[in-house]
Amino acid sequence: MSTTAHTLRPQARGLPAQMLTELAARFGANFSAAMAVREHHGRDESPFPVTPPEAVVFAESNEDVVDAVRLCRRHRVPLIPFGAGSSVEGQLLAVQGGLSLDVSRMNRILEVRVEDLTATVQAGVTRKQLNEALKDSGLFFPIDPGADASLGGMSATRASGTNAVRYGTMRENVVGLAVVDADGDLLRPFNRAKKSSAGYDLTRLFVGSEGTLGVITEVTVRLYPVPEAMSAAVCCFDSLQDAVDTVIRTIQLGVPVARCEYLCPQTIRTINAYSKTTLREAHSLFFEFHGTESGAREQAQTVEAIAAEHRGQGFEWASRPEDRTRLWNARHTALFAGLASRPGARAIITDTCVPISRLAECITGARTILDKTSSPTSIAGHVGDGNFHCGILVDPGDPDEIALAERLNEEIVRLALSMEGTCSGEHGIGLHKIAFLREEAGDKGVELMRRVKRALDPDGIFNPGKIFAA
Amino acid sequence: MSTTAHTLRPQARGLPAQMLTELAARFGANFSAAMAVREHHGRDESPFPVTPPEAVVFAESNEDVVDAVRLCRRHRVPLIPFGAGSSVEGQLLAVQGGLSLDVSRMNRILEVRVEDLTATVQAGVTRKQLNEALKDSGLFFPIDPGADASLGGMSATRASGTNAVRYGTMRENVVGLAVVDADGDLLRPFNRAKKSSAGYDLTRLFVGSEGTLGVITEVTVRLYPVPEAMSAAVCCFDSLQDAVDTVIRTIQLGVPVARCEYLCPQTIRTINAYSKTTLREAHSLFFEFHGTESGAREQAQTVEAIAAEHRGQGFEWASRPEDRTRLWNARHTALFAGLASRPGARAIITDTCVPISRLAECITGARTILDKTSSPTSIAGHVGDGNFHCGILVDPGDPDEIALAERLNEEIVRLALSMEGTCSGEHGIGLHKIAFLREEAGDKGVELMRRVKRALDPDGIFNPGKIFAA
Repeated sequence: MSTTAHTLRPQARGLPAQMLTELAARFGANFSAAMAVREHHGRDESPFPVTPPEAVVFAESNEDVVDAVRLCRRHRVPLIPFGAGSSVEGQLLAVQGGLSLDVSRMNRILEVRVEDLTATVQAGVTRKQLNEALKDSGLFFPIDPGADASLGGMSATRASGTNAVRYGTMRENVVGLAVVDADGDLLRPFNRAKKSSAGYDLTRLFVGSEGTLGVITEVTVRLYPVPEAMSAAVCCFDSLQDAVDTVIRTIQLGVPVARCEYLCPQTIRTINAYSKTTLREAHSLFFEFHGTESGAREQAQTVEAIAAEHRGQGFEWASRPEDRTRLWNARHTALFAGLASRPGARAIITDTCVPISRLAECITGARTILDKTSSPTSIAGHVGDGNFHCGILVDPGDPDEIALAERLNEEIVRLALSMEGTCSGEHGIGLHKIAFLREEAGDKGVELMRRVKRALDPDGIFNPGKIFAA
Repeated sequence: MSTTAHTLRPQARGLPAQMLTELAARFGANFSAAMAVREHHGRDESPFPVTPPEAVVFAESNEDVVDAVRLCRRHRVPLIPFGAGSSVEGQLLAVQGGLSLDVSRMNRILEVRVEDLTATVQAGVTRKQLNEALKDSGLFFPIDPGADASLGGMSATRASGTNAVRYGTMRENVVGLAVVDADGDLLRPFNRAKKSSAGYDLTRLFVGSEGTLGVITEVTVRLYPVPEAMSAAVCCFDSLQDAVDTVIRTIQLGVPVARCEYLCPQTIRTINAYSKTTLREAHSLFFEFHGTESGAREQAQTVEAIAAEHRGQGFEWASRPEDRTRLWNARHTALFAGLASRPGARAIITDTCVPISRLAECITGARTILDKTSSPTSIAGHVGDGNFHCGILVDPGDPDEIALAERLNEEIVRLALSMEGTCSGEHGIGLHKIAFLREEAGDKGVELMRRVKRALDPDGIFNPGKIFAA
């Protein structure tokens, strides 16, 4: 499957003429069939070739979404929801043509409820935009997948990132969704309570559905108080096992670390070259601690002691904001540093997540697998959750190099599955992992998902060809 | 709807003779059609009349469950999964006859993984049994719904309880489920990773499905390190508003309280009479703090300061285990104390949960509603989550009293729904709240749930008449 995705070509069936007329009449300037607009909507951050939709509608309201869905349903035309365009598994590619429904202009923050620690936003609002709006509220939204993704897209891929070890993923942090279903009906969240046992958890069904069950138009998320104190720390290890054992022990002791990231020596080398830093090229753990002044200090001291027991070196603790920023900038530049090390390259990125007891073994195995290619490779991960990413920098013009990278990706996925892990910790299935999902969930698991898909989207208009094979 | 449940009578269609023969042949002594066994399986902790199934099978293995499901499917006979029998909304009543499948003998703890902080148990294992087995591991399972429920049942009702304010509900704490579906296929958890974005979240779909989508046979749950220090505190308030404002401020400041319970003055009075205690008969908050020694102390001090700002009185902090137990015993006896105050009575218990900003208003409104009956009433709740229970003690032989109590329950549900709350915070829908679910989720919301039900259980064999009207 994965190699297929690199050779996909748009299917130019063309939208029905009647539908084009109706789209133009209904959406005016918010409708476009211009090639530049279509091409922009036929890509994401995956390394796959551009696969443009046949037209694009920019929705500005729930009513726009309702009408677009009804048109697509009536004409049996695929509809692909589009947010910030930052997904990485080919979720946005129009492999069966159809309409891209861009919700990025639905970018209003509808309500912040300080007492309830919730915010309701339109689906196109990005996480940075939300946090900017929360600046003076004493609250923040912690989920940080790296990219400045939209909240709708983050819900649709069940995103997480560096803070999930403490604050959870979108699974835990979506309170409710407004969704337009295949009938073109707008469903509102049933309630705004923090918990509910009222019927099936449709919210959790739409979280992670990657646009295949409906269009998310509004998202209510949990917010958290900005901690009184935040500090960061970095620590180096000669062995991967010692680094991971430090993480396991930290989690086992219940230290509520806010971030816990691993970077491999190769990644550190790339960062040093890119950022002119002088970090030691070793297995490195980056931590962030949130709490009261004394609580955050206590966490750092506990982790320092654990790291020392596991031969950690050069534990550096930064409680001043500027020092903290300096440390985390290094972590955040990892991807850009990698790409800069090979101009013109694109990254094929794995996304496995394993039970933490198997993490050292899995990362060690992944390194052995990665060493089979001469392409530059790196390993970094949200190790507190058992989730890590291998990056393989490939020349997009070299099919052999891409094919090898995809074979290594497959090997790493199989290794993780053999350890009761998942093929996707946080990026979703998209086009890229359809075959892996079947290996992980089994024929029957996928069949149950398909039954749900058919029950909620009987004509298969929503993002066809994703999660399931066409 | 709610009054109907009190007048339900078993439908004695009788199982097909051929099926009885097959059940006896397959299950031998683990099959029973004796009235005493049937009656035991036709009730739960709800106040509804016993509605027995037509036969009972005691499953001892996944294979037993598979075969029982296949038999029921073949003969189109309802199957009702039965765990500890502690549900409270009529989930276990055989309103369409059929077979009760008792999994309480599936009570083996299959695996505890200390490094991964997970345990896998058979569905009949109870939470106390699990914690007993964890005693020397340094870990514990926090979800505490009061009753010593089975983990299968707790998953099926999306249970929570006193610790949810810190540790979450079954929604957050089920890592994976083994389920026998309507085809009689056993589905294993796809992975054991802490997070995953691999396809639809079938686990979350089965959590809270109340036996209507399949039979849960094994549950993998998250465990937590036993905190270094635990302490408790109690504090009284003259006004409900002050008590709730103390809770809101505590949550807003991010104090990670492990428990945060409200008891109304009436409840305290009942407890004093039952337990010979001398607690002040006021609006009372009970807290529990988990953390390091200094962390738990700091939490208690912060809450004490917040309570003082809101005119809290007599803040009593207990860090010694025996003092902590004494305080919490008072909270835990609330239900028994209530029932003891009116011998022979049964309790009709509401289960609304509202956004915390509306909590004081909702509890105040509920008190006004409760004052319309002369039956003894009480209010207690997991207020850190916005969830509270009103108890109305009724004479089970007095239909007028029951009808009035149900009308008040309806009024309280409508009040909560008007505040964007839910009709069920943690007890589920069962028989009792079918009409309320429709008010809360709307016709279309219920219709989507029904489509999922039909997709996964096309012949409707699993616990028919629950969640949805027959």
